[in-house]
Amino acid sequence: MAVNPTGNPAPPGDSSLNGPTPLTGHSLLSRHSLPSGHSLLSGHSLVAGREVPGTGDAWYAVTAATGEPFGPPHRDASTEQVAEAARLAAADARAFRALPPERRAAFLDACAEEIEALGDALPELAARETGLPAARLTGERGRTCGQLRLFAELVRSGSALGARIDSGPSGTDVRLRRVPLGPVAVFGASNFPLAFSVAGGDTASALAAGCPVVVKAHPAHPGTGEAVARAVTAAAARTGMPTGVFSLLVGRGHDVGLALVGDPRIAAVGFTGSWAGGLALIAAGRSRPVPVPVHAEMSAVNPVIMLDGALAEPEPAAASYVASLTDGAGQFCTNPGLLLLPAGPAGDAFLSAVTRALKAAEGQVMLTPDIARAYTEGVRRWENVPGVREVARGAAGAGPYAPAPVVLACDVAAYTAHQELTGEVFGAAGLVVRWSGTDELLGLLEELEGQLTATLHAADADRTTALELLPVLEERAGRVLWGGWPTGVEVCHAMVHGGPWPATSSPGTTSVGTLAVERWLRPVCYQSFPDALLPPELRDGNPLRVPRQTGSGLTRGA
Amino acid sequence: MAVNPTGNPAPPGDSSLNGPTPLTGHSLLSRHSLPSGHSLLSGHSLVAGREVPGTGDAWYAVTAATGEPFGPPHRDASTEQVAEAARLAAADARAFRALPPERRAAFLDACAEEIEALGDALPELAARETGLPAARLTGERGRTCGQLRLFAELVRSGSALGARIDSGPSGTDVRLRRVPLGPVAVFGASNFPLAFSVAGGDTASALAAGCPVVVKAHPAHPGTGEAVARAVTAAAARTGMPTGVFSLLVGRGHDVGLALVGDPRIAAVGFTGSWAGGLALIAAGRSRPVPVPVHAEMSAVNPVIMLDGALAEPEPAAASYVASLTDGAGQFCTNPGLLLLPAGPAGDAFLSAVTRALKAAEGQVMLTPDIARAYTEGVRRWENVPGVREVARGAAGAGPYAPAPVVLACDVAAYTAHQELTGEVFGAAGLVVRWSGTDELLGLLEELEGQLTATLHAADADRTTALELLPVLEERAGRVLWGGWPTGVEVCHAMVHGGPWPATSSPGTTSVGTLAVERWLRPVCYQSFPDALLPPELRDGNPLRVPRQTGSGLTRGA
Repeated sequence: MAVNPTGNPAPPGDSSLNGPTPLTGHSLLSRHSLPSGHSLLSGHSLVAGREVPGTGDAWYAVTAATGEPFGPPHRDASTEQVAEAARLAAADARAFRALPPERRAAFLDACAEEIEALGDALPELAARETGLPAARLTGERGRTCGQLRLFAELVRSGSALGARIDSGPSGTDVRLRRVPLGPVAVFGASNFPLAFSVAGGDTASALAAGCPVVVKAHPAHPGTGEAVARAVTAAAARTGMPTGVFSLLVGRGHDVGLALVGDPRIAAVGFTGSWAGGLALIAAGRSRPVPVPVHAEMSAVNPVIMLDGALAEPEPAAASYVASLTDGAGQFCTNPGLLLLPAGPAGDAFLSAVTRALKAAEGQVMLTPDIARAYTEGVRRWENVPGVREVARGAAGAGPYAPAPVVLACDVAAYTAHQELTGEVFGAAGLVVRWSGTDELLGLLEELEGQLTATLHAADADRTTALELLPVLEERAGRVLWGGWPTGVEVCHAMVHGGPWPATSSPGTTSVGTLAVERWLRPVCYQSFPDALLPPELRDGNPLRVPRQTGSGLTRGA
Repeated sequence: MAVNPTGNPAPPGDSSLNGPTPLTGHSLLSRHSLPSGHSLLSGHSLVAGREVPGTGDAWYAVTAATGEPFGPPHRDASTEQVAEAARLAAADARAFRALPPERRAAFLDACAEEIEALGDALPELAARETGLPAARLTGERGRTCGQLRLFAELVRSGSALGARIDSGPSGTDVRLRRVPLGPVAVFGASNFPLAFSVAGGDTASALAAGCPVVVKAHPAHPGTGEAVARAVTAAAARTGMPTGVFSLLVGRGHDVGLALVGDPRIAAVGFTGSWAGGLALIAAGRSRPVPVPVHAEMSAVNPVIMLDGALAEPEPAAASYVASLTDGAGQFCTNPGLLLLPAGPAGDAFLSAVTRALKAAEGQVMLTPDIARAYTEGVRRWENVPGVREVARGAAGAGPYAPAPVVLACDVAAYTAHQELTGEVFGAAGLVVRWSGTDELLGLLEELEGQLTATLHAADADRTTALELLPVLEERAGRVLWGGWPTGVEVCHAMVHGGPWPATSSPGTTSVGTLAVERWLRPVCYQSFPDALLPPELRDGNPLRVPRQTGSGLTRGA
């Protein structure tokens, strides 16, 4: 979800806007530890290791629970500052990719260490800016740092290089490895201020690939973004990276992001956010003289299909559904927004249990006032569709921005007749569609748009139906779950957080897990090279000990 | 290069336009053997195993050497026929991808066998339509069939599935494999009527991925296209494939191709051809409600950089340059259109040798009259640039469509000052740019557009310079050669026939070699599945014996 924080009006105090200040590793380690109310945050862009005050109007971070501004003034980077960040990234791209893998891995590990060194002040600040509970954000910090370390391990292994050594029918020696595309622009998401933001999966995978990164800071958590950017900057300084390897640009509106994607030195773009935001960046990436790939993860309703066998015990099933639906105020890309439930008494009993569980649930503060408003409007849009009825509604939480979770229901006819029911309502709003017979269910699934996930709840007795459904589900989604709930994405080698349009713009990729690194690489082959001039990972002696596929090994089973 | 054959006017005889006829394997085997002047070619589209006469105006194949029409009348497929081919491809997509790998591999092998069974009539027909020598086309047939068999081997191995088995930090079981995207539209090239056409690399890799294929026949070799399509159709019938797995659509203008790319059932597009054709299809792929990837290989000048050490023996170096430049009338995507030669006496001696070699060369018949005209105009455009001088010109060949090969030269200042010198002149036209000093050479290389190949000719004494140039070359091209010439692409596991924009629209991919299969696949992961419901390649027992990366094996070196 894209966000426009509304906290513009009342500057709560003004920090001095110094000129660009060089940030060295050691001084940052003490400066960025956020000891007292985050007073050391500057509100500035961080361009290649230097603070760069922006030139736009002042705007402020917002306490999500109250909508009140706090912290230093932020000013959007100018067009020239955006270009300077891209220029410095490009200038250092060759030096960065030429570093030995161990150096790049050490940088990624150092990023994790520096983020951890920020201490509890980081999740506390993120909690204030996003309304998410500090405990959840402490967990997200663990995921973020684990992700950085997993990519460090990937870099050390050399497996992302995809090295291949072969000879053609004429006996020509041909050797292939993947090389980085060049500077990557990253746009984080509001709902994961750590794991999908400044040092999140896009940044970690791009750095692992050997690409410098320019992040456009998310305006819904500017302080968190700056704190993490300072940690990354400190890590880069401490491990001797070229300074252009990382920059953070402050930008509240669209100008900074569009200027960044339009810069000729940016080679690829990673985005997680709203449909509208993704489309705008995709269009910008295409309209350049040299188009660039924009890997955008945009929206999904993550269908969960309940078969009869899964309804034998409605109470625990309903409780786990409501828990997944309402966790983090439902603000997950993988939130189970669409539940496909059989018509009939077993489904009715499940819905009764959902009603009981949801009535005990309370709304949580949403990420921004705008998101809370959009949620309320989205629920109202659903409610106004003929044939849609309310199953249950929880209680609103404290304050103006914690709307009540809600579950609505309709039948397949109403769902397919009304386009407005197929879109995502970002938040803890669930739509239950009641189906009758496998044919009706299959028909509905065949018409579904691309999704990040599809989940099947079934028992042994449902196996025949499950085997009919699974081919359809894997055509519609990047991840198929047997039982369980789609929220909670495991960062590992086999994860796919992706899927067909409109879930993402790049169905061949994932934005979570180590396979995400492939978005920032392209293959190059070297023909008839003398050994000494080959990249080390392709030399006969394999001095870097990277995994390589050679000759027959490429096509024989294990 | 896109082509508009001009042979429209004089129908040399009219074959009866029957209604749709079912083509069964056995009858085709006898019918398509082209015994007597190709009289059994119908000129019809072949949609899912049936002959489908088109509805447009009649047009004809053209004898490349004379420009005279011959063979049956061709009529473009109607919009409805295009939609029907896409519908049938989509209808059979699930059945095709569900087949065991051995079945799909047997189909690819059978395609090769059926093409070979066409006998010498196939290269003879292709020679008549394209002007390329029959011997070259016999070699190209070998490459085409070898390519089909290599992809069959890839399917049998299961390595393209990219299977991964891992568990996340929470211990969740996550298993990944790649699945086919769905029906693929293929647009072949005029210059490789076999290896980059109806059953060329795009078709072979898409079928290997498990995607049905709809080919838009190239109008510069319609008979060759139909003959090969009949072979593929026979192979599909003989190996029991669902009929929708392959269709060939007749289309001379842009309408058939644009309708095909715009069809909502087409999931991806492969194209090899001209800049203008590629851009039109890319735009069509983007403007759909659900955009699809268009993998277009479009144009390149394939710089060859000569360093001083490579000029010690000018005669053999010049002879091999002229041979590569003029082979096949220079009509290769990898033709060495740009040679970067040091100023000074060693370079002068090389050019003198080029002059001697080129004066002995004779123009060959070009693929179409339009291509011959475009070549002559392109050479004239280069000649008219101030600072460009003629190095040498060969003799024109027989007939009106065999223009003389030519080599022109200029200095770096003229080259960089005139945009018209940077584009490709398709054919045997070489531009030699004389450079002075490594800095000038590096500056020129840094400004080069994306290329399919970059070649460095150097000796041991040039090693320091070579190490400076190689990082730049690998940023500009998909394949870097040490010595030799870029024409002649080896089909193997490590080949990259791709590169940055504008060489291709998909720098992360290749259109030659087994890695090409990845263009038509996307990853799906399966979370917490019972073993029996997993795809066989992901089950614990690995019944298909596919290579899989598991746990720690994913990131440890070999």
